[in-house]
Amino acid sequence: MDKLSSWMERALKQLNLVSNMNQKEGFSRLGYTKEEKLSQHQFRKIAQKLGLETHQDSAGNQWAIWKVDEKVPTIALGSHLDTVYNGGGYDGVSGVLTALATVKALKDESVQPNRNIAIIAFACEESARFGVSTIGSKAICGILKTERIAHLQDLDGTTLAEAVDNCGLNWKKIKHAKLSSGDLEQFIELHIEQGKQLESTNTKIAIVSVIARPTRLKVTCQGMTNHTGTTRMGERRDALVAISPLINFIETKALEMNKRQKDSLVATVSKMQLSPNSMNMIPGEVTLGIDIRSTSAALKKEMTRSIDDFLEEIKRTRPVNIEIEKLVDDDPIQLDKAIQERLRDTCSKLGISSLTLDSGAGHDVMNMAQKWASGLIFIPCRDGISHHPKEHAEMNDLLTGTKVLIAYLKEIVITK
Amino acid sequence: MDKLSSWMERALKQLNLVSNMNQKEGFSRLGYTKEEKLSQHQFRKIAQKLGLETHQDSAGNQWAIWKVDEKVPTIALGSHLDTVYNGGGYDGVSGVLTALATVKALKDESVQPNRNIAIIAFACEESARFGVSTIGSKAICGILKTERIAHLQDLDGTTLAEAVDNCGLNWKKIKHAKLSSGDLEQFIELHIEQGKQLESTNTKIAIVSVIARPTRLKVTCQGMTNHTGTTRMGERRDALVAISPLINFIETKALEMNKRQKDSLVATVSKMQLSPNSMNMIPGEVTLGIDIRSTSAALKKEMTRSIDDFLEEIKRTRPVNIEIEKLVDDDPIQLDKAIQERLRDTCSKLGISSLTLDSGAGHDVMNMAQKWASGLIFIPCRDGISHHPKEHAEMNDLLTGTKVLIAYLKEIVITK
Repeated sequence: MDKLSSWMERALKQLNLVSNMNQKEGFSRLGYTKEEKLSQHQFRKIAQKLGLETHQDSAGNQWAIWKVDEKVPTIALGSHLDTVYNGGGYDGVSGVLTALATVKALKDESVQPNRNIAIIAFACEESARFGVSTIGSKAICGILKTERIAHLQDLDGTTLAEAVDNCGLNWKKIKHAKLSSGDLEQFIELHIEQGKQLESTNTKIAIVSVIARPTRLKVTCQGMTNHTGTTRMGERRDALVAISPLINFIETKALEMNKRQKDSLVATVSKMQLSPNSMNMIPGEVTLGIDIRSTSAALKKEMTRSIDDFLEEIKRTRPVNIEIEKLVDDDPIQLDKAIQERLRDTCSKLGISSLTLDSGAGHDVMNMAQKWASGLIFIPCRDGISHHPKEHAEMNDLLTGTKVLIAYLKEIVITK
Repeated sequence: MDKLSSWMERALKQLNLVSNMNQKEGFSRLGYTKEEKLSQHQFRKIAQKLGLETHQDSAGNQWAIWKVDEKVPTIALGSHLDTVYNGGGYDGVSGVLTALATVKALKDESVQPNRNIAIIAFACEESARFGVSTIGSKAICGILKTERIAHLQDLDGTTLAEAVDNCGLNWKKIKHAKLSSGDLEQFIELHIEQGKQLESTNTKIAIVSVIARPTRLKVTCQGMTNHTGTTRMGERRDALVAISPLINFIETKALEMNKRQKDSLVATVSKMQLSPNSMNMIPGEVTLGIDIRSTSAALKKEMTRSIDDFLEEIKRTRPVNIEIEKLVDDDPIQLDKAIQERLRDTCSKLGISSLTLDSGAGHDVMNMAQKWASGLIFIPCRDGISHHPKEHAEMNDLLTGTKVLIAYLKEIVITK
């Protein structure tokens, strides 16, 4: 396994386009940018070296296939290569890297699989650039709502449609990436946990049973701007003063709900914009972005309702107008029970400690699971830190994840 | 006076570069921009038509002088022509306009003054563009700290020094605008109140006794960013949740201080910046801008101290680091008592209602008053609204202000 781990060391840096994983500013490889394309190019180079057939679909997803026969089913593994701004080199890459390493190991052992094995590097999984996530996997599953998102702009004012076209793709044809249910038999994703539960319980593998998906609210509080020096305290319609209690209310409410039911929900005021945001002007308008996640749709509804009530109370007591827009409201996704069971068996046979977790973050597998039997494996990441230059996963843990994938696949693809 | 008021109607639009004062987006004529220069050009045209000598000093201040004799003292009137972003057409312009109208009236009456009368249109009074206010009048008074502010940038990244040079001036020579105390005898500014006290007491003129100047704080709260979906509520270092109670604390404290001493202080969290400010990321850093004003330095200190204590408490109870930077801390400015007295007499002789007020906002006169006997007159503005497209002053009130200036000057410049 030392040979495999040093191969993985090299491939990890290659996919991250660096010679050293210690990057002070982290990795900024956003979806549908030339940086993502460069990483995809490295993916194809590595896959071709392993003797896999590579191609790109019309959504920019990268495919590397070990094709044994047109007529046999295909098992897919994979994750994504894009990152957030100043993110880490393991979120996404870990799943692509371990999939490649798994195929390499099977080939080194001269395994003759009775299934085709496909590795997918999904395009634009992160919402960092356009505010919409998992675009590549949504396209494959045929659930991409192109009309709604074509016009979304990044910080430079480039629209999603333009960005896709700039990658040598054709936005109008992005839906052609859709596959029919017969095209795949199942899908398995490996990902870093982005949390502390494996680390704190000193467990090596988490098998995910359900994926929480966000409810996202945009709250706009409208007051009246005026001069900070000449407007008496009693004559103000300060939008910031009116809305700010919501921030602590949301934390308090979430903590209370988690006391009732341990770690059942997270809620965050993650975005905030003041207008005019000028030193001598009273804030006339404030917009907030709120991100609510739980594996229970009911708990998300409870939080949303209590936010509504709290804002009603503010409107009653402050001279402001408040509007709430529901940007996203997705129900949790249950993963395939049989696959979870088989993954658990695989771990115990290998003597690798495992536990069952919910996923607080969305992943490409949450789309794939709506069409194909799917599974999600977590490996530990240091201090639970992710989307940050400090994000780190140990090579030993990446190797352990790979061992699980190898054994899991052998169970299926080797004819006894 | 009808002739004068219709002349003022025209001049008001001319100085605002519009044919109609109703502008949905208001006026954006920032300091040291071509828009300010265009307005200054109109000022010179109007002044020259009145037979005044015009020139520009090395800070870009515009001068129009009715010179009767080198050897007699000079009385100066004036205000500024620049605005904030989407501001009103009366803040500043009112003082320049009424000064011009005053000279016109004196000339129409063929008054032979025994003083030179100067009108100053100060450059860049507003802090909107570079965060530093009253640059032109500071230069005249020799209190401009050029080293500290040369590098300050506007939204486009243009530095103050570059902006001044781009106006055909020379930043290195801006201090040459400094005058010696002998060059002027006194200075009078007329300005809109930017508050509601004249309106609510149905009074026509306010004579200002003291000008509050701001204390400005920059507070930086440093937590740790992480994924909103995977970081449990109990494991967070959310900088926004930690700092947000400060916003309501400042309002509560200010209201309490005003209860103790009516309308003695205003305090505002006017700026706020989250980082990364992304929907699926916990705020890792938040910076706030706080603006505190009072005519009592002691009350400003009391507010600043209680903010310090409150932040210490947050540091004790939340896993964040907080830094406070004092950007500005200026003491209040007392205006000349004799001039206040003479202005009061003038009003009563004219049968115009007047009251004495403090000014919550800074004005060019606060610099001039440090070198020359100075006075400040307020006229009403609708609903106290300023720095806003809705800012409005009635022509009748502008005319009343002009009458006061005319009578005040006659008292001084006509030899009995």
